[in-house]
Amino acid sequence: MIGEFEIIRKFFAPLAGDASGAFGLLDDAAVIGENEFVMTKDLMVGGLHFLSDDPLDQVARKLLRVNLSDLAAKGAQPVGYFLGCVWPAKTKERDIDSFAKGLAADQELFRIRLYGGDTTRHVDVAAPLVLSATFFGKPPRQGIVRREGASLGDDLWVTGTIGDAGLGLAASAKPKSFPESALSHLIGRYRLPEPRLSLGGALPGLASAAIDVSDGLVADAGHIAKRAGLRAEIDVCAIPYSDAARAWLEKAANKDKAHARLATAGDDYEILFSAPTSRRRAVEMASKLTKTPVARIGTFVKGEGVALIGRDGEIEVSSAGFDHFARG
Amino acid sequence: MIGEFEIIRKFFAPLAGDASGAFGLLDDAAVIGENEFVMTKDLMVGGLHFLSDDPLDQVARKLLRVNLSDLAAKGAQPVGYFLGCVWPAKTKERDIDSFAKGLAADQELFRIRLYGGDTTRHVDVAAPLVLSATFFGKPPRQGIVRREGASLGDDLWVTGTIGDAGLGLAASAKPKSFPESALSHLIGRYRLPEPRLSLGGALPGLASAAIDVSDGLVADAGHIAKRAGLRAEIDVCAIPYSDAARAWLEKAANKDKAHARLATAGDDYEILFSAPTSRRRAVEMASKLTKTPVARIGTFVKGEGVALIGRDGEIEVSSAGFDHFARG
Repeated sequence: MIGEFEIIRKFFAPLAGDASGAFGLLDDAAVIGENEFVMTKDLMVGGLHFLSDDPLDQVARKLLRVNLSDLAAKGAQPVGYFLGCVWPAKTKERDIDSFAKGLAADQELFRIRLYGGDTTRHVDVAAPLVLSATFFGKPPRQGIVRREGASLGDDLWVTGTIGDAGLGLAASAKPKSFPESALSHLIGRYRLPEPRLSLGGALPGLASAAIDVSDGLVADAGHIAKRAGLRAEIDVCAIPYSDAARAWLEKAANKDKAHARLATAGDDYEILFSAPTSRRRAVEMASKLTKTPVARIGTFVKGEGVALIGRDGEIEVSSAGFDHFARG
Repeated sequence: MIGEFEIIRKFFAPLAGDASGAFGLLDDAAVIGENEFVMTKDLMVGGLHFLSDDPLDQVARKLLRVNLSDLAAKGAQPVGYFLGCVWPAKTKERDIDSFAKGLAADQELFRIRLYGGDTTRHVDVAAPLVLSATFFGKPPRQGIVRREGASLGDDLWVTGTIGDAGLGLAASAKPKSFPESALSHLIGRYRLPEPRLSLGGALPGLASAAIDVSDGLVADAGHIAKRAGLRAEIDVCAIPYSDAARAWLEKAANKDKAHARLATAGDDYEILFSAPTSRRRAVEMASKLTKTPVARIGTFVKGEGVALIGRDGEIEVSSAGFDHFARG
């Protein structure tokens, strides 16, 4: 069956028509009015985007954070959201209470409010929790940072660390394959991403293009490269890893495959952005001011696609591709 | 288990906090910015809000129309929407094509555009299609028409006809219980509501309160009455019925019960509104100008709740209540 990107390209993008702020459905968010609001919508489905036994307060917080991450990557500041919930047939009141407590905690942290929504319940006992959030925020004065805009020679930067969430998902399924000391860090990174709103707020005027890493570093670098008509070359030695990911990498038999797995695992929710080489000092200053680690991991060259460059040349990615949905 | 209204009141309304345009989650829509946009979100779940064998182009159009109906009742004009789809595991490309064709047809009709969204797929083969739409539109200059605002002595008005969609749902399940001549009208009214955008656009400055009829005439009149601290008295003889509903009513053994059933069936998506008696001529003029039938069906008196007044006095509603979700 046809995949998500193909469905959007073939069936839904034509429905955006000439609506200027919809960007042909090619970006992470849309602008409505005369740069009045930025809006983004993300779904989460039990068994697909979270595990059905993940604590519901953390599921709630993840729902908010994946949407906040989209706004962060566009340089926007969140204001509020609309929430849709389809509860499993057996949901108990205490489940909803736990979910609402998670929302409340993160609303406080990110200073956002719930503005409306809809809530209903499955009739089918097997059907999973389905969550939908539509966020709105204030765009930067000069307009949002788009996926398109990277130029030949631009640097590629990424915040935080890469691959933890993918390992965290694997660790949730098989905790014994990971050292006890790394478990809580990795699972925590899968369950509770950190939207990079402060650094995101510094991107307008600095970054030439930006996206949040949800599909995986390679796939999301590919989105920026495609919009620019360029090729992204990523130096694997420059990819920022956590101590836990580094320890896992040390033990891997095939290092190239291990790098490729971390670079293709999704759910990092870091910001990946391009910027002219002349802005290196400015990027580092923004990183310092917002207390957000950034790493310069690559560059845009002529060509297309994404190359992952290891010590011994380009690493084959396609066969090492790690599908974080493939858990049956 | 706790019901939808109770979930919203207990767990979600506190999350709106003091956000002024959220109206404590007590209205059909929210206002964002300084009366810049009106937003509303409705979910539809297969087997619950539509039948799993309903044609997908019509399901798509219903999704748009139930949301457009919310905007209409607030006096707002639609601009665009964000769409979330969780497809059943066995969805075929031609299903999505049919769905997108339905969206395209109604986008053209209502001059709206798709601005963004998210699409994914269930892993569980039994899980139904889940749809979410978040609409935005332009509010009237003087602000949206609220659910609250009805005054003692105000008239209660409703557009179109009541009860057809409820009969249409019953007719979908048991077509042989209905005359062949009525089937397509009734099923059509269930599948394809008519958002009353033209009449809705005339409501600001005319109506004191408004809501669209989704939970049923009695329940939705109850929402207006509750917000006003008043009692709505509805004259069943004044409720507008289609020829098909009238024919069904003729054959019913217990007329009171039959009236109550039509007045409690949901999914009409007509606009129910209150207006001062001094505006009767103005309401009729608006009806004529917008070519939208309206009927004056009741009045607001001291007290609480809703009374359905038949020829022989008040009709008992609670026991005759018709739950349009109760189809197992």
